Amino acid sequence: MIRIVVDAMGTDECPLPDVSGAVAAAREYGVEIILVGDEARVRPALEAQNAKDLPIRIVHAPDMLTMEDKGEKLVLKARSKDAKNSMAVGIDLVKKGEADAFVTAGNTGAGMVTALFRLGRIRGVDRPALAPIFPTAKGFCVVLDIGANPDCKPENLAQFAILGSVYAEKVRGVKNPKVGLLSNGEEEGKGNELVKAATPLMKTAPINYYGNVEGKELIGGAVDVAVTDGFTGNVTLKTSEAVAKLITDKIRELIKNGNLITKIGGLLVKPALSEIKTMLNPDEQGAAPMLGINGLVYIAHGRSDAYAIKNAVRVAKEAVEVKVLDAMKSAIEESLKK
Amino acid sequence: MIRIVVDAMGTDECPLPDVSGAVAAAREYGVEIILVGDEARVRPALEAQNAKDLPIRIVHAPDMLTMEDKGEKLVLKARSKDAKNSMAVGIDLVKKGEADAFVTAGNTGAGMVTALFRLGRIRGVDRPALAPIFPTAKGFCVVLDIGANPDCKPENLAQFAILGSVYAEKVRGVKNPKVGLLSNGEEEGKGNELVKAATPLMKTAPINYYGNVEGKELIGGAVDVAVTDGFTGNVTLKTSEAVAKLITDKIRELIKNGNLITKIGGLLVKPALSEIKTMLNPDEQGAAPMLGINGLVYIAHGRSDAYAIKNAVRVAKEAVEVKVLDAMKSAIEESLKK
Repeated sequence: MIRIVVDAMGTDECPLPDVSGAVAAAREYGVEIILVGDEARVRPALEAQNAKDLPIRIVHAPDMLTMEDKGEKLVLKARSKDAKNSMAVGIDLVKKGEADAFVTAGNTGAGMVTALFRLGRIRGVDRPALAPIFPTAKGFCVVLDIGANPDCKPENLAQFAILGSVYAEKVRGVKNPKVGLLSNGEEEGKGNELVKAATPLMKTAPINYYGNVEGKELIGGAVDVAVTDGFTGNVTLKTSEAVAKLITDKIRELIKNGNLITKIGGLLVKPALSEIKTMLNPDEQGAAPMLGINGLVYIAHGRSDAYAIKNAVRVAKEAVEVKVLDAMKSAIEESLKK
Repeated sequence: MIRIVVDAMGTDECPLPDVSGAVAAAREYGVEIILVGDEARVRPALEAQNAKDLPIRIVHAPDMLTMEDKGEKLVLKARSKDAKNSMAVGIDLVKKGEADAFVTAGNTGAGMVTALFRLGRIRGVDRPALAPIFPTAKGFCVVLDIGANPDCKPENLAQFAILGSVYAEKVRGVKNPKVGLLSNGEEEGKGNELVKAATPLMKTAPINYYGNVEGKELIGGAVDVAVTDGFTGNVTLKTSEAVAKLITDKIRELIKNGNLITKIGGLLVKPALSEIKTMLNPDEQGAAPMLGINGLVYIAHGRSDAYAIKNAVRVAKEAVEVKVLDAMKSAIEESLKK
């Protein structure tokens, strides 16, 4: 049975969404769940779930990392052998082979740094990347990095390309995924210095390299994987999410404040609008993997609800099933031989 | 009377949308129009417009710049004293004081380079920036740069901030506009190396500096002006436009392919959806100014229709009326004294 560690102290409203999402995942996907967190808080949340028949246990971690943990302070906590925070304790379970993947909705930076120090990187990967799914006109696109590395070197982008390609193929089931380099123009030669320097590396990497993609092609679905530095990726992701929210909010507002006819129309198109909402909802994916870490770590939004956590456990389970970590290691290993 | 030069050879379908948009602008906004382009093609397009009573004249320019004009070839054409392409001829009219602003829907790169070589820069500005309007939850935000400079220095961003601030205040009528630095985190200290290095310059610039803004705050309307490098700006703008299009296309598709009830609902909410479309339509602004050039130059999409060209002439006229060029020059001059 696949064993997923869930940080019970992750979400803004923790531990309830974390615990109930994990319970739902155990029930629905047949996974074993290990909840890490302050037992005095996690135990009552779990007992309220009517989950006695499910393979769920609690591992006590009295501390938790918060938004206040950053810089040197965070690094100390992430490195400390004696760390008792839920992220460190949870990630150590993966490191010791007692669990297959770790899911947290806690502070993204804290999750990344803790994973980096405790699990280390895949050999040959200089910088791990956060790799969420963007909805596109044709389905989805894995975009990386979206925040772990605000400043990247060309080699980082080439490594992201390999990691993203293996992830899309194994976990998302895309055969020979097309990998693009996010840029301000489609033609080769367009781009900032980073993109221009990364282009030759992308060409020789063991991937199906598509070339540059603009924002239009990214969302149009031209590629399965889009590679970028963490600064551009983060700004692009957050702006896109905000634009989607602006439009859907505005539609709701116009219907709500409209005349009777508009209101009736709104009721009638509601199912169609729900479909859009599902398409755009980041909670459907639940969490984004940190690729390049020597272990499977998924990071969810702090505002995740139980549904998002349940989905996060599902994507983590799917990644474990297809042995994506081994596949990424082999692909990077291969690339080093050239 | 304000005199606007319109590149009749700009749009993908030129000269018709360019000419009819310009004619509509002359009629609606009381501006004088100078059409530059191949007279043999422009004259019949103008004569078909029933515009004899309007102050419109044609200045012959037998050549045109296309997407093929780039790199050294473009620079040569942009610099040549004898250039007979519509952009060079039109921009020279502004330079000689025979017109107040230039509007083109031609190749963006060609427009930027031609403007830069023929009009030069405002003293104290190292790099001009393309500055379109983003729709936000509270109205709009001037974002610059969105493509003229894929790689920027911190000083460039500080100059963009001053130019954008004056533009928002004068042309968009925002009192003491809030200026943000687009970043991957709101807190000071978040950002890539460029953002971090630009922060102290933003603080001492003669602007109402707000701090870092993420994509969420940008679209939420936290600031009136958002400053970024041309690479991030371009990727963000194009991705945002594509996300907006994806959602509106998807809604249309779901309604079209829906059952009878959904279809009826779709008809009833149509006016509300049209409002969204107007909000998101870049054609409402028509064109983006190139700020930092020593002259008023507006660049529109190649796929602009007559409506977009008409609006482009309107925004150019508004900029001339409020003497934004002089105001930008004074503000940059002031900043140099410090």
